[in-house]
Amino acid sequence: MKILIIGGNGTIGKKVSSHFSENHEVLIAGRSAGDYIVDLTDIESIRKLLAAIPSLDSIICIAGEAKWDDFKDLSEEDYYIGIKSKLMGQVNLVRVGQDYLKSKGSITLSTGILADDPVVKTTSAAMVNGALHSFVKAVALEIENELRVNVVSLGVVEDAYKKYKHFFPGHNPISMKKAVNAYVRSVEGKGNGEIIRIYE
Amino acid sequence: MKILIIGGNGTIGKKVSSHFSENHEVLIAGRSAGDYIVDLTDIESIRKLLAAIPSLDSIICIAGEAKWDDFKDLSEEDYYIGIKSKLMGQVNLVRVGQDYLKSKGSITLSTGILADDPVVKTTSAAMVNGALHSFVKAVALEIENELRVNVVSLGVVEDAYKKYKHFFPGHNPISMKKAVNAYVRSVEGKGNGEIIRIYE
Repeated sequence: MKILIIGGNGTIGKKVSSHFSENHEVLIAGRSAGDYIVDLTDIESIRKLLAAIPSLDSIICIAGEAKWDDFKDLSEEDYYIGIKSKLMGQVNLVRVGQDYLKSKGSITLSTGILADDPVVKTTSAAMVNGALHSFVKAVALEIENELRVNVVSLGVVEDAYKKYKHFFPGHNPISMKKAVNAYVRSVEGKGNGEIIRIYE
Repeated sequence: MKILIIGGNGTIGKKVSSHFSENHEVLIAGRSAGDYIVDLTDIESIRKLLAAIPSLDSIICIAGEAKWDDFKDLSEEDYYIGIKSKLMGQVNLVRVGQDYLKSKGSITLSTGILADDPVVKTTSAAMVNGALHSFVKAVALEIENELRVNVVSLGVVEDAYKKYKHFFPGHNPISMKKAVNAYVRSVEGKGNGEIIRIYE
């Protein structure tokens, strides 16, 4: 398979890329580094990226940002950071991706445990994640060409645990092997419209 | 209690308003009719509304729109109709409302079954509803002044069933009594961060 991994150089992305590279052709796109540069907040940038890669079987997105801050400090504009990047960036990836992927291809988006189990400072981040869960369920009813769309929702992963654990009191880290397997399940399984939750 | 019902003249809103009027002081706001006019897409309009009503105990919002259309026909701008109205309109209502409500007051938002169980043409509407479910869980962790924030998520209600049933094959209508009770549970109960799902 030819697999495009957006955010393939990130904390989770590099483990996912490394795994799929063992048996597949992997191309990496990133905001500032990779085989391709892409700006998720700009649909034309997404379109250019996908137009440049013929015969693509799968897209994995492990990218997109949202602003973390106390509820009383988040401005309306702050909410739109997550809406334009992590939310509509990934929605647009499906909108554009359906025209470029090979039949029976798959698109795997990424959210996180905040959708179901938020912590302080995440009214914006949780909102965006929850939006994507419902979007994926809805788009699976309509996506054509036998394409599949799933979303991976991980708890805090082991490789980011040290940096983020004070935001997640009592949360148990997810091993990188389980994190990678969630993406394998989406790409190599046959599920469509699945929210692949990996929480411990 | 003094209760403001935004959308209090709508299909569900008028039943909710009528019920609460039996024992409470109810004020109705709407896009084009009511005791007050408000544009949910404009935070300044929300601020003006709340500034005009002193000593408010509860806000109920049964308003906000999102575009319904086939996934392949929804434009990026179409998604932003729901984002600006039903999603950020209700988020902004909580953001502004926290400054105007009396201590121990409540804010009740509205979504719908699409968040959990979407149908065709609802990638945008489902997305917005799912976003609000996660937002409410997150904001309940941080809201101050002993305020409570809940969201009511109804299946297709009896009074709208005839008009919408062809979009919801096999769905069972929710009685208006159960619909009203969902709002009563939020306003008169003590729950915070609850997603009050009424599906049959």
